[in-house]
Amino acid sequence: MGMRRGTNLPRMGDFNQSVILEAIRRSVEGLSRIELVEATGLSAQTVTNITRRLLDDELIAEAGRTINGPGKPRVTLRLVAGSRFSIGVHLDPAVITVVLLDIAGTVVRRRVVRAADRDPRAVVDTMAGTIDELISEAGIERARVAGIGVAAPGPLDAAGGTVIDPPKLQGWHRVPLRAVLAEATGLPVAVEKDTTAAAVGEAWTGGGAADGSFLFVYLGTGIGASLVREGDAIRGSSHNFGEVGHIIVDPDGPPCACGSRGCVEVVCTPQAIVEQAERMGVFDDDRQVSDVRAVEERFTRLCERAAAGEASAVVVLERAAASLAVLISVLANVLDIDRVVLGGPFWDRVSDTYLREIPGALHRRSATRAVREIPVTGTVVGDDVGAVGAACVVLDLALTPRASDLYLQD
Amino acid sequence: MGMRRGTNLPRMGDFNQSVILEAIRRSVEGLSRIELVEATGLSAQTVTNITRRLLDDELIAEAGRTINGPGKPRVTLRLVAGSRFSIGVHLDPAVITVVLLDIAGTVVRRRVVRAADRDPRAVVDTMAGTIDELISEAGIERARVAGIGVAAPGPLDAAGGTVIDPPKLQGWHRVPLRAVLAEATGLPVAVEKDTTAAAVGEAWTGGGAADGSFLFVYLGTGIGASLVREGDAIRGSSHNFGEVGHIIVDPDGPPCACGSRGCVEVVCTPQAIVEQAERMGVFDDDRQVSDVRAVEERFTRLCERAAAGEASAVVVLERAAASLAVLISVLANVLDIDRVVLGGPFWDRVSDTYLREIPGALHRRSATRAVREIPVTGTVVGDDVGAVGAACVVLDLALTPRASDLYLQD
Repeated sequence: MGMRRGTNLPRMGDFNQSVILEAIRRSVEGLSRIELVEATGLSAQTVTNITRRLLDDELIAEAGRTINGPGKPRVTLRLVAGSRFSIGVHLDPAVITVVLLDIAGTVVRRRVVRAADRDPRAVVDTMAGTIDELISEAGIERARVAGIGVAAPGPLDAAGGTVIDPPKLQGWHRVPLRAVLAEATGLPVAVEKDTTAAAVGEAWTGGGAADGSFLFVYLGTGIGASLVREGDAIRGSSHNFGEVGHIIVDPDGPPCACGSRGCVEVVCTPQAIVEQAERMGVFDDDRQVSDVRAVEERFTRLCERAAAGEASAVVVLERAAASLAVLISVLANVLDIDRVVLGGPFWDRVSDTYLREIPGALHRRSATRAVREIPVTGTVVGDDVGAVGAACVVLDLALTPRASDLYLQD
Repeated sequence: MGMRRGTNLPRMGDFNQSVILEAIRRSVEGLSRIELVEATGLSAQTVTNITRRLLDDELIAEAGRTINGPGKPRVTLRLVAGSRFSIGVHLDPAVITVVLLDIAGTVVRRRVVRAADRDPRAVVDTMAGTIDELISEAGIERARVAGIGVAAPGPLDAAGGTVIDPPKLQGWHRVPLRAVLAEATGLPVAVEKDTTAAAVGEAWTGGGAADGSFLFVYLGTGIGASLVREGDAIRGSSHNFGEVGHIIVDPDGPPCACGSRGCVEVVCTPQAIVEQAERMGVFDDDRQVSDVRAVEERFTRLCERAAAGEASAVVVLERAAASLAVLISVLANVLDIDRVVLGGPFWDRVSDTYLREIPGALHRRSATRAVREIPVTGTVVGDDVGAVGAACVVLDLALTPRASDLYLQD
């Protein structure tokens, strides 16, 4: 590693400003200056100086006075939700979701488009056009948009913002998404793995307030995992943290293209679950096509039939849940995490079965079961967690205090 | 998570002092004040003030002057290796290793004892007695010993420094090792998982200087993993990071007590490898006992015969290497790491075969093979990596600058 760098006063000031803004942002009702002193440990003078700067920048506003006994009334400071915005784009093999988020994490506008063409150039044009529409429909100044976050399937070359060879996106090979989309929109762009973006979204918009350390298991066309520790998403050395597709979860499972057997990819994905249901004769008709939409349609039917109590469909989903519990136990035991959040575009359809089956199976396989239980919950963000998370990545980069920002640069 | 706290001047001063001490410690030849300004980004005045304090505390000393052209000669500042010490204890099912380390990371004294009795009380007495001997033999003041680090098999209850139910240590159940050993020695004690301690040792005594982010795979009586990112060991939420025993690495492997098949525990451990060799008829004689020493003796013979080129022994070790490569690929893909270091008490015996087999197998299974190669090397610390690492844990806690130390406390 490089030598650790020192810190100095200007860095300290920037950091403390982020700390105060974060405290105000996370409070539902706003905070007074005295409450900020208590929450942050900073001196009253520092809090006064920094809040004056935030008021000048219109990031916060005074929102009423409270009189508590004698002395000056307390002024409540609140985040100005409409002071900054960010755009989140979820590039999924099936659909593209675009959201406009305000600084409070609220979805102001949302649109789902199915790109008629998979060609990267056409997809980027569709994204840019949709982004323009959302900004003008919302009637906000473009200067207030901090940037665009794109959640894309991994692996990524994050240094260049490049999508390498996502297994589920045919025709995409080393697409320099960050540069192309930045050129098309004139806004700064951050490209993030969909699974990491989802975890950032979960941490930002509620989950993080309660407990900032969790494993996020992402159920999309592929299965991914991400980790948030003390509010920060862990990205790994090349921003490709959480590639779990070839972890073996069922030694009796079907063969995998990697040469092994029973990997997550051939056991836990929607396509693998649909194929398992087909092998077990759950469907009367044969599937004619194998594209993502046809698979998704069948998966939805399978989940509906399980919800209606059809035994063979229930068995298929319970087997899938048991295998996913093996994956989650591997990750929980390696990463040593406090709790698990499940989400992603396919989560809603399986949540009843999975929340019934997974917690017990995980506990039996937990290496730390003598010390603690590991709670398992569903996402608070919902189906749009990828897009919302991508927008949160932008806000997070701009606003969250990080001790590492204190280091003096080379 | 709790609210993020601010920072202030005194915290900044402590942090910058750690940064300067670390810079001097990591330099082989020592550094002048001007070089410290360049290395840390701090002002000349700050460097002068802090180095004066470190000189007063005798943690550093002036070690010669260099004249470079006109102007004042540069004074080289060096770490005083004998200014502080720490003790490292490795509690292994087979043996107990105790080392005395100086602040430069050099092993000053070392002793290996076989506890005649596995009873926790007797083991702690043996440890305490050995520690006393090492300190008095080295002729150092007890006040200069910063503390004792104990590397123990997981899982641990780290908050209490308690060894829970280590699978390989019969008779140990919820032993409050930290409290008992602190009472027996009068020194502060830190208890750490053996695998984590090993990684800290690797980062402190050389490996970290070159590149501070790596996965450490620990080959002991059990197999463990640990992670160092930018010089810091990642411990997880309950200090039990890296429990990998039940990751499936061979779907055709033997059954495991967990109910699955082909787990690390029944495929990659020395005992599993010896049993595989026995099933394949590598040994002429039958093993009479199954305790750790008998297994270790057979494992050593197996490795010697592989080194001598005996085909059946070579095949067994190559299969073990292939399975370990599956584990390493799972960890590399989940954790997204730059390089892999192998070590632990059994490493030396298998290093030739493993370093020949694992790098290629890992590359084939790497999710980021399109972006980079992941180098695989052996530890720089050697067989004592657990004990040396435990001593480094104490030095690391006392000396390494951490940005998180900047936060104001509640």
